Amino acid sequence: MSIPPDLQEHIEEAKESILVPDEEIMASDFLGLSDDAIREILETLQNEDAEKLDILLDDLTTSDKAELLEKVTLENRQALMLGFSQHFNADVIAILQEEIRSSVLEKMPAEQVAKIISDLDSDDALDIVGSLDEEFQQEIMRKLSAKIRMALQEGLNFPEDSAGRLMQREFVAIPQFWTVGKTIDYLRAAKDTLPDDFYDLIVIDPGHHVVGEIPLNKLVRAQRSVKIDDLTLDEVHPIPATMDQEEVATLFRNENLASAPVVDEDGRLIGIITYDDVIFVIDEEAEEDLLKLGGVKEDDLYRNIVTTATSRSRWLLINLFTAFLAASVISLFDATIEKIVALAILMPIVAGMGGNAGTQAMTVAVRAIATNEISGANAWRVIGKETAVGVLNGMVFAILIGIIAGFWFHDAGIGTVIAAAMIINLIVAGFFGSSIPVVLNRLNIDPAVASSVFLTTMTDVIGFFAFLGLASIFLL
Amino acid sequence: MSIPPDLQEHIEEAKESILVPDEEIMASDFLGLSDDAIREILETLQNEDAEKLDILLDDLTTSDKAELLEKVTLENRQALMLGFSQHFNADVIAILQEEIRSSVLEKMPAEQVAKIISDLDSDDALDIVGSLDEEFQQEIMRKLSAKIRMALQEGLNFPEDSAGRLMQREFVAIPQFWTVGKTIDYLRAAKDTLPDDFYDLIVIDPGHHVVGEIPLNKLVRAQRSVKIDDLTLDEVHPIPATMDQEEVATLFRNENLASAPVVDEDGRLIGIITYDDVIFVIDEEAEEDLLKLGGVKEDDLYRNIVTTATSRSRWLLINLFTAFLAASVISLFDATIEKIVALAILMPIVAGMGGNAGTQAMTVAVRAIATNEISGANAWRVIGKETAVGVLNGMVFAILIGIIAGFWFHDAGIGTVIAAAMIINLIVAGFFGSSIPVVLNRLNIDPAVASSVFLTTMTDVIGFFAFLGLASIFLL
Repeated sequence: MSIPPDLQEHIEEAKESILVPDEEIMASDFLGLSDDAIREILETLQNEDAEKLDILLDDLTTSDKAELLEKVTLENRQALMLGFSQHFNADVIAILQEEIRSSVLEKMPAEQVAKIISDLDSDDALDIVGSLDEEFQQEIMRKLSAKIRMALQEGLNFPEDSAGRLMQREFVAIPQFWTVGKTIDYLRAAKDTLPDDFYDLIVIDPGHHVVGEIPLNKLVRAQRSVKIDDLTLDEVHPIPATMDQEEVATLFRNENLASAPVVDEDGRLIGIITYDDVIFVIDEEAEEDLLKLGGVKEDDLYRNIVTTATSRSRWLLINLFTAFLAASVISLFDATIEKIVALAILMPIVAGMGGNAGTQAMTVAVRAIATNEISGANAWRVIGKETAVGVLNGMVFAILIGIIAGFWFHDAGIGTVIAAAMIINLIVAGFFGSSIPVVLNRLNIDPAVASSVFLTTMTDVIGFFAFLGLASIFLL
Repeated sequence: MSIPPDLQEHIEEAKESILVPDEEIMASDFLGLSDDAIREILETLQNEDAEKLDILLDDLTTSDKAELLEKVTLENRQALMLGFSQHFNADVIAILQEEIRSSVLEKMPAEQVAKIISDLDSDDALDIVGSLDEEFQQEIMRKLSAKIRMALQEGLNFPEDSAGRLMQREFVAIPQFWTVGKTIDYLRAAKDTLPDDFYDLIVIDPGHHVVGEIPLNKLVRAQRSVKIDDLTLDEVHPIPATMDQEEVATLFRNENLASAPVVDEDGRLIGIITYDDVIFVIDEEAEEDLLKLGGVKEDDLYRNIVTTATSRSRWLLINLFTAFLAASVISLFDATIEKIVALAILMPIVAGMGGNAGTQAMTVAVRAIATNEISGANAWRVIGKETAVGVLNGMVFAILIGIIAGFWFHDAGIGTVIAAAMIINLIVAGFFGSSIPVVLNRLNIDPAVASSVFLTTMTDVIGFFAFLGLASIFLL
């Protein structure tokens, strides 16, 4: 804790008389919009009380306004955007969910969209332009200034999800031969042309190559006479513009960076990435993994019914195929089921428990692969452990299910067969639940997308086969 | 892009002669440890070549060293920690996964652990001490200096996952009556007692209440004579120490903060939270949601077999209960199945497709609730949409499955019954997949944990009941 000495005295004096600020600013004011607030705004919109609505909207933060637009119906959104556009500036548009943003921008004249894009930082502008459909994109591009257009076009050339798409072109670079004093004088003189926020100064050589960076907190505690060269951190992390955004996030996490320079193929500085871009990437990647595991390609909360149904149907179609595969395994034993109908009643239990146990192992493995916690060095150890967990829980649940099923159908044979099938299927679940993601990852197939369909096919097919097969052998 | 004019000249001159730095520092050096590197280290350890191992370990970054310890076996980890402890300093220990960290710390003498804790920032120290078991914690506490012990004890009093646990006590606070010049002079004079990294100055009044904050980039571009009061951002976000860490993350995201002050119940400054703490929270919360949806309570990658099996068995036990519930629905129709064994073959398809479609809707809803994208204002709209998606895909898959099943068993009746059951179950899946998380959330039950068990019970029970019930009515 750093408190200057003369403040310390003040504090001592004031200790007895606790001051309470006039207007308490609560952090909870910035935690999002309450449903009541949304309701009040919609009622006011309904009543066409423009004056009151202006006051209500004035009270909202940028993120509140985005949340408002996202949570209301299409009609209300358009009514708000058309009648009260002055409240919804470029910053609000920039943070809207992509689907919602498109629905908003499509209704606007191209000039207005171009104006919004010109007002934004280069990374936000690129994000918006990149998400427009081609024709509208071209129309907007023609209305932008040559400088902005060229920067955007260059940005669009970088692959999606690359550092080049993420970076902003607004940064502060200084030469290594300056002093701290000269740097501060420059920052003071150039204050209005500097980016709104920055955390590090990028130190470059005359060839525009990144030499290092200086966190501002190092600059402010150095004497004016100190040379920039002596302050420069030699551990720089110039990020190639083509680097995948997930790697960028790993880099920021591993090295605890607030910002890092982005360079072109010749190592020349072309932009910077800041921690807030990285938070965005982390959110996006975490969301992607979660959704993919649930069989959803992307966040379709804001999509219309037909688009959503179409995109979901692909996954269901694959599952339909595997379900018929499992059904055909059952059909191998139709004669057995005809004789002992209890098998039909119990068989979903064996398959289902295998599916659940396998999903547990798979979830841990998929997450660990995403965070680089599983690699060749420890993959076999993880698979071995999961198989052992399958053996342990297989034995526990075999006994439990065997006893219940045996008593239910007054038949120790059925109890024994289901117990044996349960052990087999939980071992299968542990082994394949952990090994499928590892193998898919090594084949460069996204384990979050494809693991669960392979896994449930295995646990269904083997579950049915083991249970019905053992029953055919021992119970007939 | 901000480049000073005299540098610009240099750049123009140098444009033709592209300089290539002597030693290229690649960003990929900071992206983690390769399996080959781990293998080489382990081989060197095996060969007891201490000299070479020292060189290899010297080359690793802090996060590489943590990754190394996490990916090797317990024996190798202990061999590294005992023989080469000088390479694994407090910073390495601080970022280890909790399970691994405990296994490492338990083997160390209490003095050494106390030394590590004294070397760390207050937030990392608190994180470690909080994760130790009570007895060892007390032993360590006794060996710490009174000042550190008191700070830790105060920190431990805050609830887990609260801002108070997350914050560090090292910050820079200045009084509002200072000028920029005086502030910079103070920072220069106090340079060695300031925290290693900071991004904002916290402005306080004599009562130690937070008045505002000044990002360093605003300070460095202001003239020396400017008053701190005039620079202070009035939109401060003092965070109560008891605020939940998830809310802290929302706040940082919504307001794009690099750091924010934490205050006690009287509004007095007691610490700060920085963006890197928030990235940690976001990772942790995303991981939690993903794991919970997969039926795993917490990351058990590094746990032993028995602990893992025990913790997983709870979820399997709940699923066993619901599986028997579904089985008892099937048993209602045992006479029907005895007559038409095709029903036993096809019934898992109906239940399984319902489960998959429901999981899709549920995953989107759980994620949207976690990111506050679903609330009372739009919940009914989301549920209505998901139900409509169920109707659409239900019709598509009903036709498909009806035709396949009809042809398979040469029985149009079976095709018609399974088609009808499929429509019913996909509508049920859409409705319950989206409404169960919403309802659980309103009842303050974590939707990520409990949704899937309720959902699959619904899609199993209704899937079996609809298919077998319709078959009993129309096919017998």
